[in-house]
Amino acid sequence: MAYEYDRAIAVQRRAEGEYDVDLDAGWIVGGGLNGGYLLAVIGNGIRAELDRAGHPDPYTISAYYLSPSRPGPGIVRVRVLRGGRGSSTVTATLSQVQDGAEVERISTLATYGDLARMSGDVRTIAKPPVLPPVEECLLTSDASPEMKRFVPMLDRFAMRLDPACGAWTAGEPSGNNFLQGWFALVDGRPIDPVALLTVVDTLPPTTFEMGMPGWAPTLELTAHVRCTPAPGLLRIRHETRNFAGGFFEEDCEVWDSADRLVAQSRQLALAPRPLESAGSGE
Amino acid sequence: MAYEYDRAIAVQRRAEGEYDVDLDAGWIVGGGLNGGYLLAVIGNGIRAELDRAGHPDPYTISAYYLSPSRPGPGIVRVRVLRGGRGSSTVTATLSQVQDGAEVERISTLATYGDLARMSGDVRTIAKPPVLPPVEECLLTSDASPEMKRFVPMLDRFAMRLDPACGAWTAGEPSGNNFLQGWFALVDGRPIDPVALLTVVDTLPPTTFEMGMPGWAPTLELTAHVRCTPAPGLLRIRHETRNFAGGFFEEDCEVWDSADRLVAQSRQLALAPRPLESAGSGE
Repeated sequence: MAYEYDRAIAVQRRAEGEYDVDLDAGWIVGGGLNGGYLLAVIGNGIRAELDRAGHPDPYTISAYYLSPSRPGPGIVRVRVLRGGRGSSTVTATLSQVQDGAEVERISTLATYGDLARMSGDVRTIAKPPVLPPVEECLLTSDASPEMKRFVPMLDRFAMRLDPACGAWTAGEPSGNNFLQGWFALVDGRPIDPVALLTVVDTLPPTTFEMGMPGWAPTLELTAHVRCTPAPGLLRIRHETRNFAGGFFEEDCEVWDSADRLVAQSRQLALAPRPLESAGSGE
Repeated sequence: MAYEYDRAIAVQRRAEGEYDVDLDAGWIVGGGLNGGYLLAVIGNGIRAELDRAGHPDPYTISAYYLSPSRPGPGIVRVRVLRGGRGSSTVTATLSQVQDGAEVERISTLATYGDLARMSGDVRTIAKPPVLPPVEECLLTSDASPEMKRFVPMLDRFAMRLDPACGAWTAGEPSGNNFLQGWFALVDGRPIDPVALLTVVDTLPPTTFEMGMPGWAPTLELTAHVRCTPAPGLLRIRHETRNFAGGFFEEDCEVWDSADRLVAQSRQLALAPRPLESAGSGE
């Protein structure tokens, strides 16, 4: 495997519907591993299981995060709920052994098919984000060594943030409700449908730019993969429209170089809590 | 139970995590039962299971539709994956016996908690849909008897469509990518968090007004319930931004009389197919 990303999401068949994985410390963000990276590990296990059925591509996957994952060994289990002609629906989980017992980290439902067989009318009214040229954007891997010790994941990709939503990096958040930028994996590994499951969760939380630093635990993330991206840089955008009642949603759009909306995701997260507050939630 | 909706979604405890249900023919739409109605039946089973834990309210639920449900007996099974202080995550299914064997209809993942305990900052930039007064809107239960024989569900609620997106009812779709209107259950039953799981799936497909009649099978629907609605009429809006590659997403927003965005949902559906086409998908 020539690309580091392929090594990081690799799955090794152990038995029918069971895959060994080795979670990569390179995808650490703060106290845990990036949720989109973990989703692609599970998504890769599902692909391995459904490839034989002619359904290698995620159409939709919904992930519920149960406990924080750690770098090291894990097990992906895939169970087919419905096998159809055009698509298959599965339940898939990621577990790790902790203190001698197996603990579920993430539980998912997903429907896979073959994007190459899908086609038809395009009547899209969505518009791609308008970004400054790459060279005017903020390369996230240029973050300080202190920041990168906390977020080693920043070295996994070449993300270039639109400076219009990067004011938080200088400690002066604009209050805007979105983040956007250019995206590629660090070693140029092409983005396929499974890798899109990582891409949708790589931008920092919108709450950073809204002036609310802190960790915002994701309750649920659903991603829809709409087509296989054309080669070239991707444009990604995260937006929050309803921050209220202790929750906020983050909608991510991923656009390819052919101006197609290749993936849409939405996650529901708990509002970041100041350290001094007990609050509700977990 | 004074309200017909409560009888329709009633669950009867059979064993630990197992509930008998009786799916109501009143919620038929075309060849099946409405997906939002079925989601509330499952959601009611989850509520029955988690009430003891102090987590009666759906925060988020993701449903994958496996096979068409029929009116009559069914079984809801709920298994707790994670029980926390602030919320619990479960997997829940709806099954029916068919030709002597139990068949899964819908598989879900959900996180429930207590909306009354959630609070905090409101920084919403979303705006409620602008609707004409109720008396200028199209009451969907005024549809023709022929239509209502095909969609008995139309008598379950008082939905008043904005005439600006009702041109399809006269056979002249406007091409707009949204539908919106006022909503109440027919007998005035107050809308609580579980009932919102039905509300998000009551509008006709956006494709009707886009000029593409026909059945558009839902692959997946995720709903986020953000707060308990205030009494009074709800405003609901369905919008599609990306119709492409044989799929389209429908985003639903539900607003209450206090101008709060009380629920958001997104579903991924297969494009409606003309009868003569074999096409891909299922």
